[in-house]
Amino acid sequence: MADPNPSPASYRDAGVDRDAAARAKELIARLVQTTNDPHVLSEPGAFAGLFRLPAGPHTPVLAASADGVGTKIKVAIRAGRHDTLGHDLVNHCTNDILVQGARPLFFLDYIALGRLDEAVVAQLVAGIAAACRANGCVLLGGETAEMPDLYAPGDYDLAGFIVGIADEHRRPGRHRVRPGDRIVALPSNGFHTNGYSLLRRLLFDRLGLTPTDPFPDLDATVADVLLRTHRSYLHALGPLLEQDRIHALAHITGGGIPENLARILPAGLQARVHTRSWEPPPEFRAVMRIGAIEPEEMFRTFNMGVGMILVVAPEHADPVLADLHAAGEHAWIAGEVAEGRPAVLLV
Amino acid sequence: MADPNPSPASYRDAGVDRDAAARAKELIARLVQTTNDPHVLSEPGAFAGLFRLPAGPHTPVLAASADGVGTKIKVAIRAGRHDTLGHDLVNHCTNDILVQGARPLFFLDYIALGRLDEAVVAQLVAGIAAACRANGCVLLGGETAEMPDLYAPGDYDLAGFIVGIADEHRRPGRHRVRPGDRIVALPSNGFHTNGYSLLRRLLFDRLGLTPTDPFPDLDATVADVLLRTHRSYLHALGPLLEQDRIHALAHITGGGIPENLARILPAGLQARVHTRSWEPPPEFRAVMRIGAIEPEEMFRTFNMGVGMILVVAPEHADPVLADLHAAGEHAWIAGEVAEGRPAVLLV
Repeated sequence: MADPNPSPASYRDAGVDRDAAARAKELIARLVQTTNDPHVLSEPGAFAGLFRLPAGPHTPVLAASADGVGTKIKVAIRAGRHDTLGHDLVNHCTNDILVQGARPLFFLDYIALGRLDEAVVAQLVAGIAAACRANGCVLLGGETAEMPDLYAPGDYDLAGFIVGIADEHRRPGRHRVRPGDRIVALPSNGFHTNGYSLLRRLLFDRLGLTPTDPFPDLDATVADVLLRTHRSYLHALGPLLEQDRIHALAHITGGGIPENLARILPAGLQARVHTRSWEPPPEFRAVMRIGAIEPEEMFRTFNMGVGMILVVAPEHADPVLADLHAAGEHAWIAGEVAEGRPAVLLV
Repeated sequence: MADPNPSPASYRDAGVDRDAAARAKELIARLVQTTNDPHVLSEPGAFAGLFRLPAGPHTPVLAASADGVGTKIKVAIRAGRHDTLGHDLVNHCTNDILVQGARPLFFLDYIALGRLDEAVVAQLVAGIAAACRANGCVLLGGETAEMPDLYAPGDYDLAGFIVGIADEHRRPGRHRVRPGDRIVALPSNGFHTNGYSLLRRLLFDRLGLTPTDPFPDLDATVADVLLRTHRSYLHALGPLLEQDRIHALAHITGGGIPENLARILPAGLQARVHTRSWEPPPEFRAVMRIGAIEPEEMFRTFNMGVGMILVVAPEHADPVLADLHAAGEHAWIAGEVAEGRPAVLLV
């Protein structure tokens, strides 16, 4: 059983570079500091982050969500541009708790790499930290793991976890949706983080494009279009949530409008979405044409230009729209809620 | 630019199976329910989990940690045994907030797979849910992502995120460590989740062993030894934390005793660890022999049989040991804190 000629083994031989890990840790600690606020009790490098509970809602409830950014990562890796994914990740998580009425408190990241490349980690964490600052939340901790053999050289995965706080008695949700409510749409910023396996198949594999080629029909490169960041709707919707003027919110991610809007429909109600109330942005139309994709499949795979849907009482629809327009949001009425078998109808 | 002969593209063609994803979601929802408690407000499938803050400490502070289980995953995949990693993950996270004096409230998981294999996801989530129940925390949410092209077929990665609650004024930590304090060691349950890249290199690559072969010098298979789960120290240490009898805690993970004990040493104090106060378990000795690994490297890579270290006031050492022994823990005095240049000395 024993190796007849053993040579000393070390962790570095096994593909793990502990010095690079230590340097990455220092760099991350500096970036983390840029997001700090007085609620943070822990020092960088602590076993866990500590966050003092803020004074706030009368009946506080914590909201938490875990997310990844899917194979958009492969586009970033291929383009060698790693500073945008952090925004995707933090904004995606922020939106997921926002639809529960929560504002972010803190965020933690998980980065796993085939080999710890400090420049890549620096770009990833810089993006995460910038997005945390933009969403008013603290980067409280995280894990960076070097996993030789699980990830190909240059590959990595990225996941994020967010915790926010809401007021139990003012949170939006399915329980507040009524027949006659209006559906208000807010524009996305492109593909956000969904449909990337299909996009890569079409653009890279079928058309043979590279990240620096022009995106079909658009005056921008493939990388520029595919790496546009997932928007955060926190600043647009925060005031409306404060004023308790939203019945429910649906973040349009995987599964598109049909599957995500269905998540906030109570029994006996259906959503009628007027797909002619807007024109999907050109990148969606280009992909539909190139892939000869049926409209229904497009709507189940992509956000089609809608990143967030609000359900509001009919009497609130106009003032809510006016406020959103005043805030620079191109919001529009995209349908209504009605009695009927529970379904999201694209009409 | 246009494909001259386009054929319809769909998400399934792009390697993503949405029906399998829907089935996995249902299965996960059932497992999640087994961890539920009255603090949970959200339904399975909500955009984010909602958790009502428990009445508790006078000055509540949230503790949060993100972790993976490293390349122990590759052992599980190779052995085809996916039900233990969830325990590793939840227990690791639990210990990381425990050292800050926090008890777990809720947990979220991130599972990324090359292809969504429902049986694998079922085993992973069943393990996570069981470990959540054992640690008294709720599985509040998570993300399961199918990532063709990032993970090889059969491969996956797993990360976890925990939130707990502590009392700001009773938490252990570096700020409470004093000269003369005793170092108390609690046994690990094998390798826990550290050193697996080296272990796999030695056992699988150099010795050519398979998971079902006997582990060198042990009366157990390679898989049995390598997949023994990372212990949770919550139940052993919870009462001592309640009684405020612990100055500081160090969870012995990557970097071993030297690097993790250093994390709780204040300026001007050093830790002297008496390595002859215990004998590393046989699996560590076997690995040291097989790899011809220097003792210092062993201590920096593996926990060497110590999973958690307590720092306690000298007058508390004997009663703390007695209580731990009464609770079935094989705890022992493994050193002391003294004035001197900050260092962890293995003496």
